[in-house]
Amino acid sequence: MRSPLALRNGETPSPHHGISTPSFHSTVTLRKLRRFNLLILVFRLTAFAFSLSSSVFMVTNSRGSDSPHWFDFDAFRFVFAANAIVALYSLFEMGVSVWEISTGATLFPEILQVWFDFGHDQVFTYLLLSADSAGTALAKTLKGTTTCTTSNSFCVQSNISVALGFAGFLFLGLSSLLSGFRVACYIISGSRFLM
Amino acid sequence: MRSPLALRNGETPSPHHGISTPSFHSTVTLRKLRRFNLLILVFRLTAFAFSLSSSVFMVTNSRGSDSPHWFDFDAFRFVFAANAIVALYSLFEMGVSVWEISTGATLFPEILQVWFDFGHDQVFTYLLLSADSAGTALAKTLKGTTTCTTSNSFCVQSNISVALGFAGFLFLGLSSLLSGFRVACYIISGSRFLM
Repeated sequence: MRSPLALRNGETPSPHHGISTPSFHSTVTLRKLRRFNLLILVFRLTAFAFSLSSSVFMVTNSRGSDSPHWFDFDAFRFVFAANAIVALYSLFEMGVSVWEISTGATLFPEILQVWFDFGHDQVFTYLLLSADSAGTALAKTLKGTTTCTTSNSFCVQSNISVALGFAGFLFLGLSSLLSGFRVACYIISGSRFLM
Repeated sequence: MRSPLALRNGETPSPHHGISTPSFHSTVTLRKLRRFNLLILVFRLTAFAFSLSSSVFMVTNSRGSDSPHWFDFDAFRFVFAANAIVALYSLFEMGVSVWEISTGATLFPEILQVWFDFGHDQVFTYLLLSADSAGTALAKTLKGTTTCTTSNSFCVQSNISVALGFAGFLFLGLSSLLSGFRVACYIISGSRFLM
């Protein structure tokens, strides 16, 4: 695979963003963009799977009226809400990626799309990390208290949910790096194509 | 202020990254780079001030043997450690920024410098958010327990420390965005100059 630098050096420069050979641009750069979008799609799919599992694990964490409930704890509610939001967002972004791969165009106007993706990726990555860290702190505090001694499975299931949330955070963070790179491409060249 | 795009369009293109007028490049781009570095320096200084204050607030949060101690709580130890690490790192990066502004060259080789800054910014931003979220969850759990009723000032001081940590996170996150942009410039053009 040629480096982006080699591609730029190989191009014949012109005042219009250094591109004067549209057919070359459309073949090599579009193939690179397609590969880039496929990578983002894989990350989004994985983030979706983990955050959905995390929220399902948390929301089903109630065992009758005499055992503790997840919604009695602020941090666990935060874990559920953050993971559910990220799952919905990832589902939407998967649709956007599939649209872009199949049609070659962005769903929204290009400038809006790159900033929308990057802004939401950043905010939701921090949101998810914040929720999972709060969940971890609560889980550690609960360990050894009567909540965990009377219902050990409640604590185990909470821990699994938080761990799945961290996995979701990892893949959302990777998507965020890629969408950040697209924004930088857009700022520098006026197009998400420059890679 | 002219946009980066306008600057690129205004340049006379050549096969060497589209730059054939070194004097124009060295005047306009160096001035932009200097302004960019000054902005990073301001963010780093602010992040340093907040994270140092946060760690000092946490480490002084002990009032004799009959009141609670910050180091008895995992999450508060995490808050102190993360803020102390970020304060040290910000101090080092402030030195690096001052060096770059005064000499015009990076301290390490350029490729190492841009990746070092971005990598550490990303990791420490997440570390700080994670610590502060864990600290918030613990502070919320402690509220209403005997720890806070016997020594209210302990809880107030912990809350202030966590809040200062969040402010530090905000400015470190902004530095991380700028250093991420420098990495993207480097990947695309082979130089941190392209802005």
